[in-house]
Amino acid sequence: MPERKSTLFVGIAQLVTSQAGPQRGAAMRSLTLISGAALLVQDGLIAWVGSEKDAPPADQIHDLGGVAVTPALTDPHTHAVWAGDRLADFEARVQGVPYETILAQGGGIRSTMRATAAATLPELVALALPRVHSLTRSGATTLEIKSGYGLDFDAEIRMLEAVRLLQTQTSATLLPTLLLHVPPSEGRAGYVQDVCRTLIPRVAGERLATAVDVFCEREAFTVEETRQFFAAARQSGLSIKLHADQFHAIGGTELACDQGALSVDHLEASGEAQIAALGRSSTVATILPGVTLHLGLPAAPARQLIDAGACVALGTDLNPGSSPLYSAQLALALGVRLNRLTPAEALTAATVNAAAALGLTDRGTLFPGMRADFLALHSADWRDLPSTLGATPVRSVFVAGQEFSL
Amino acid sequence: MPERKSTLFVGIAQLVTSQAGPQRGAAMRSLTLISGAALLVQDGLIAWVGSEKDAPPADQIHDLGGVAVTPALTDPHTHAVWAGDRLADFEARVQGVPYETILAQGGGIRSTMRATAAATLPELVALALPRVHSLTRSGATTLEIKSGYGLDFDAEIRMLEAVRLLQTQTSATLLPTLLLHVPPSEGRAGYVQDVCRTLIPRVAGERLATAVDVFCEREAFTVEETRQFFAAARQSGLSIKLHADQFHAIGGTELACDQGALSVDHLEASGEAQIAALGRSSTVATILPGVTLHLGLPAAPARQLIDAGACVALGTDLNPGSSPLYSAQLALALGVRLNRLTPAEALTAATVNAAAALGLTDRGTLFPGMRADFLALHSADWRDLPSTLGATPVRSVFVAGQEFSL
Ligand SMILES: [Zn+2]
Ligand SMILES: [Zn+2]
Repeated sequence: MPERKSTLFVGIAQLVTSQAGPQRGAAMRSLTLISGAALLVQDGLIAWVGSEKDAPPADQIHDLGGVAVTPALTDPHTHAVWAGDRLADFEARVQGVPYETILAQGGGIRSTMRATAAATLPELVALALPRVHSLTRSGATTLEIKSGYGLDFDAEIRMLEAVRLLQTQTSATLLPTLLLHVPPSEGRAGYVQDVCRTLIPRVAGERLATAVDVFCEREAFTVEETRQFFAAARQSGLSIKLHADQFHAIGGTELACDQGALSVDHLEASGEAQIAALGRSSTVATILPGVTLHLGLPAAPARQLIDAGACVALGTDLNPGSSPLYSAQLALALGVRLNRLTPAEALTAATVNAAAALGLTDRGTLFPGMRADFLALHSADWRDLPSTLGATPVRSVFVAGQEFSL
Repeated sequence: MPERKSTLFVGIAQLVTSQAGPQRGAAMRSLTLISGAALLVQDGLIAWVGSEKDAPPADQIHDLGGVAVTPALTDPHTHAVWAGDRLADFEARVQGVPYETILAQGGGIRSTMRATAAATLPELVALALPRVHSLTRSGATTLEIKSGYGLDFDAEIRMLEAVRLLQTQTSATLLPTLLLHVPPSEGRAGYVQDVCRTLIPRVAGERLATAVDVFCEREAFTVEETRQFFAAARQSGLSIKLHADQFHAIGGTELACDQGALSVDHLEASGEAQIAALGRSSTVATILPGVTLHLGLPAAPARQLIDAGACVALGTDLNPGSSPLYSAQLALALGVRLNRLTPAEALTAATVNAAAALGLTDRGTLFPGMRADFLALHSADWRDLPSTLGATPVRSVFVAGQEFSL
């Protein structure tokens, strides 16, 4: 419960925020920076922001001690619920064993699916909770978590139920997404029909997810199957998202932009047509530099996306196989190094644009009326947030004006 | 003080160590792995290691609860003492401003030298201590710290005195190195002579450093100047080390191998001749993946070095300009991604070989007689150490058998 009393946060050497609402293209570089700032919080929302010398009266004062304050981060793309590990796969792959061999030896995503199917609901929650804490400690107060490792509908539902239970154990906001990840090896048409007629309506009915995501790729679902999933999602009142262009651009991005998807994620293989489509549309382009680092694959063309006017967001893609990245701050820092975002663009991508990738317009900037989710850094310069590698520049995390403690 | 009582550490799901002594070439991949292990510590040293079922009696038992244990890490290359920051440089550089312009605007290494010269000794210590803690928390119980940001000899001495004071505030071992980093803009021959006749003997006489390091590069010191520094160092009884081949291979690596340097560090621009020289010599080849990630420059050719039989080590190169990397664990994890080390090679590079890069033979493996510096991970699989990005897989750090607390 947010406190009713108003709190004035002072001792803010530097308050930095992107502009309100999703930011596209060059606007991603436009920050508002107030030196010697203060921030008034009431009922969990920002009531006022400005120079400390102009600050209004408040019921209580919280002195942050002269540090930089930024909006809290949003991680718009995680697979934080899983069982088992992929460490043997990791060791084999970096030694040059082909993925086909790893799969044939029982590794790969199917091993995660088997372990996740074998885990009980309490086990899934216990395994995921430290991952959620790690992301929150890194500065993310809003996280998306996908299903997608279920061997069957019951296992998918169990993953989403795990997210619901996790929500009771954190003050961060968790947004669950139903991910259609791996097509069955046989009976594919029937499976797609069952998902559309049974799984999606059930998930929507039980409010187990707010969005449907599809892995649209040569080895996964086709554009036509994706279209069917999207239609079912919209019919059930759920938002739509897409994993696309990770290895091949087969048309998913264009479909998602056309259908008003919240975001298309990955984009490592996007070409001119996909970049142009994202540049024209309100669909957010979410890039995932953890995958680039972990797998050594090409980086998503963030510079071209921004130049084309796209709204770019950053996520961890936390998962055991392709991105064991447990920090939204490090995702931001990697976006600068691997995708050549500027520090300002990366801040926008990890805050207000990441919130937009989840359909949230109530957070991600530090203007009156927004949720008072913000970070106090260790230092007085916000650029420690994109610069620091291997340690946290975040001293404290505030959710709705309350200091988060783990 | 290590306890006189013997302690038997049990509850070790997996104990992993490289072989004793510096490991070269393919031998870097040879690990000893004991499942269900126990470790006996007496007087700060490992007294016995083996299967828990064969464990000898002990005065006390410490149950680690079923996790993986590895040797503690050594970070053989840091510049952890500095004042000021380089965040404006960082922002300018990633926006495409050339380094020459940054220098002309008062940025670059000279800004760090000015800020460091302006800082008092207590200020330098206060600034460096959290950096040392961060590296230790990441698993490094032995750290090298270089001077090199001094505008004059007094400032260099003050940096080394800062390391001496830092040593009183941590149970990690700190090894100070005198780094000859930036030639003066004029009076170069006289400067070299002064360093050799005054600075090096003084540093050795006051035991302020154990080694002399030189930045040998087109824009820094020549091979001939390096040769003079090395001669003075050896005359004063100090070990020698080298920064070489970062941008150009001008012959420093060959000189260092020839002169029995402890290590040559960087090596991003090493060619066949330098790789062959390191493959033949006992000089350690230290690679620094943080620089690769931060500056987006080519990675050191670790695979070719190992194939040539070199002894490869890993370091953070922690410094504000080219490697703001505060975690020895992340350096290890980046070595796998950016330099294509296997997990086993990376463990060897960050433990026993990193200790060898500092001339230390008493640590880095878990065999009887070695210092009981080890890590207990959160998980039961040591490969979480090279795999995890953005969170620490290290649950507790033991120095001479005592749990380190920060
Ligand atoms: Zn994903
Ligand atoms: Zn260095």
